[in-house]
Amino acid sequence: MTAISELVAALTPEKVLTDPDVTGSYARDRTFLEPGSPLAVVLASSRDDVVAVMAWATAHRVPVVPRGAGTGLAGGATAVEGCVVLALHRMTAIRELSPADEIAVVEPGVITADLDRAAREHGLMYAPDPSSYEISTIGGNLATNAGGLRCVKYGVTRDSALGLEVVLADGRVINTGRRTVKGVTGYDLTGLFVGSEGTLGVITAATVRLRRAPAVHPTTIAAEFGSLRDAAASVSAIIAAGCQPSLMEMLDRNTLKAIDDWRHIGLEEATRAMLIGQSDAADGPAVAARMAEICTATGATFVAVSSSPQEAEELIAVRRMAYEAKERLGTCLVEDVCVPRSALPYMIEKIEEIAVAHDVLIATVAHAGDGNLHPVFVFDRSLAEPPPNVWAAADAVFRETLRMGGTLTGEHGVGLMKRRWLALETGPVTEEIHHGIKAVFDPLGILNPGKAI
Amino acid sequence: MTAISELVAALTPEKVLTDPDVTGSYARDRTFLEPGSPLAVVLASSRDDVVAVMAWATAHRVPVVPRGAGTGLAGGATAVEGCVVLALHRMTAIRELSPADEIAVVEPGVITADLDRAAREHGLMYAPDPSSYEISTIGGNLATNAGGLRCVKYGVTRDSALGLEVVLADGRVINTGRRTVKGVTGYDLTGLFVGSEGTLGVITAATVRLRRAPAVHPTTIAAEFGSLRDAAASVSAIIAAGCQPSLMEMLDRNTLKAIDDWRHIGLEEATRAMLIGQSDAADGPAVAARMAEICTATGATFVAVSSSPQEAEELIAVRRMAYEAKERLGTCLVEDVCVPRSALPYMIEKIEEIAVAHDVLIATVAHAGDGNLHPVFVFDRSLAEPPPNVWAAADAVFRETLRMGGTLTGEHGVGLMKRRWLALETGPVTEEIHHGIKAVFDPLGILNPGKAI
Repeated sequence: MTAISELVAALTPEKVLTDPDVTGSYARDRTFLEPGSPLAVVLASSRDDVVAVMAWATAHRVPVVPRGAGTGLAGGATAVEGCVVLALHRMTAIRELSPADEIAVVEPGVITADLDRAAREHGLMYAPDPSSYEISTIGGNLATNAGGLRCVKYGVTRDSALGLEVVLADGRVINTGRRTVKGVTGYDLTGLFVGSEGTLGVITAATVRLRRAPAVHPTTIAAEFGSLRDAAASVSAIIAAGCQPSLMEMLDRNTLKAIDDWRHIGLEEATRAMLIGQSDAADGPAVAARMAEICTATGATFVAVSSSPQEAEELIAVRRMAYEAKERLGTCLVEDVCVPRSALPYMIEKIEEIAVAHDVLIATVAHAGDGNLHPVFVFDRSLAEPPPNVWAAADAVFRETLRMGGTLTGEHGVGLMKRRWLALETGPVTEEIHHGIKAVFDPLGILNPGKAI
Repeated sequence: MTAISELVAALTPEKVLTDPDVTGSYARDRTFLEPGSPLAVVLASSRDDVVAVMAWATAHRVPVVPRGAGTGLAGGATAVEGCVVLALHRMTAIRELSPADEIAVVEPGVITADLDRAAREHGLMYAPDPSSYEISTIGGNLATNAGGLRCVKYGVTRDSALGLEVVLADGRVINTGRRTVKGVTGYDLTGLFVGSEGTLGVITAATVRLRRAPAVHPTTIAAEFGSLRDAAASVSAIIAAGCQPSLMEMLDRNTLKAIDDWRHIGLEEATRAMLIGQSDAADGPAVAARMAEICTATGATFVAVSSSPQEAEELIAVRRMAYEAKERLGTCLVEDVCVPRSALPYMIEKIEEIAVAHDVLIATVAHAGDGNLHPVFVFDRSLAEPPPNVWAAADAVFRETLRMGGTLTGEHGVGLMKRRWLALETGPVTEEIHHGIKAVFDPLGILNPGKAI
């Protein structure tokens, strides 16, 4: 019996895809990276399926690449040659939703926004909202420790993960963490699995924290600035004033231009940056008015404040168009650096300088309240990968980020894309520890090899 | 040259204590546990001192027990026979406090409340506030992932730890994490060190998150109940109403009686429980009034609402007397179980039943908003350790906690005290992983051996 026929026997034939025309569509994430050819794709529908795959993979020393919805931006789910892609998007059960304990137990294939909607039926919310939340899965969010727009107030995915059910490399199952918000029994394995990009185990369920949904509709402001630095400076001023925005996004001229060319938002010639802020506090309109005043005081040329839930949504909608608008310009290398908030004005200008120096089109959006910048390097669609000047510009951005006390990736993960810069941030001793931990969980090195560390 | 003289040579004689009359006072934490005799106590004053100790300890295979202020309640800092106690309480520098980035970089010996006070000079706060915060250190808080009263709103110590400087078992130094609130480069080593009770490395500095201090003085309510279950039920009702209390504590009759016998708080005969809640929101008085209404609706016999900052403090002061009041009754075994909030009414009554069944005096306080209960088992001062009926009662509490989906320790850690129950919660595969991780960081097993895992 061949290895693959053993896998089919352990599952059922419908769950194991081997036709290269079909498997190829599960081999990529949202990056331009060229994947290896998978041996097979497994469409898992239960924890037991995952157990069967891992036991089989251990027996045959076959690499396994876990996959959610494939919306990743760092190559974490890119297939490696001869692997099994373990697709988890069919595991969509919300096993439990407890309003009394403000928790849910969910499978990895649940779409992030679906969980949020289910929670809102009980006056609760699931806070993490990566820009892809209508199409990304909780499993993928956990694998990358996804952030999002609301995390300036509510934290990242790890802050909402209380416990996990994990299938280990050899098919054994462990439960980490707990159903309580506090707990210190044993090492923090939950936190360790979150953000480990499928290199330590396969998450088959998560106990996540829900939060009380705000009682009021949020109020949104959108401020236009003639200077990038002024826009960035108002972010710090807003935070320092104690406004606690529930969202604080920034878009540069290149991003606004891409949106305007596509959707005609009436961009003014002099506008160099836009800041979009939101408050979901009980006194949201008052807080929003205060944020608007601060923007005006720091040089905004125009500030709109929403006067209805619909207007509030319309102002945010501009931000949500950013990524699609940029994809219309060419192939995108989406970066994800994060700097201390005080370094934001410097960094955002520095990125413009780097773009000029390397003759690259960089369009930047930022989760500005967190200092998390997404400079998007646009290059010609005819090229299979970024040309040298794009990599050189990215390299300059990374080095400047680290020099400012920042980090290479705020929320997308290292995947394949950032591995060559990893050692610059972590250093050799930490690298050694990373590999030591990897070996504890995956001694044969079959779980998503070559990723994350 | 003897091992100790080598240690003295690597440091200076004043930093190495070997007189058994002196070293004994560094050998205990706040538990009744009988320590082993330390070979020496090192009073470290810098990271380099810690490096020297660990390099020496690795060379000579000597166990090292890191120690903060010795306020632990689980035996995590209890000396083991022939160890070096590595005392870090002299490393008290706040190396940096950045209001713009809302972070501080602190050494492990900084007293928790001192950091909070330093932050408040800039309109910020350091949120974690274990009951011992006026005497405990940040290093000890990090080692146990300490909670506190405010964590119902602001999270536990891990939620405030962004990055660490750690001396490894062999004396090498790594920096984990970052100065930004977001970041996913590499595995979450920061989270792994927090709560690891000195078994993986020695923390010599931490970058911690500060938060905006509330703009208003908090408003406090204190509600008396004739039934323990009613008091516990109002906690869930208050949370479900979206009040977001900044503190939500519960005291049982035995605790109130101990306080009343000592400080004469005018305890009514019919009072079986007290709930103390606080709101630090902008509309705190309105929220407090709502909490008071909910208490009345769920059966409170009397509710006081503070009308001044001083009154707010006085109502909390009762809670802060609890531990000292109980220590006056006998030797205390302080437990720390945590259950899902919905299980609180059941659990708090079950503890009373267990007390009766085993003929043990148990006085319970709870960080009720988090479901975190501290049943304190009081036993005769003439006994060196808890008598069999106390252990039997504790065992019954632990098993009931786990049956309700709870955890053995919410915020004190496993230390030595809870190791015999650990496997009940974690299971054999997780135990194996714990020991695998331990071996990556500490292959010789010299860091706080026999603790935590």
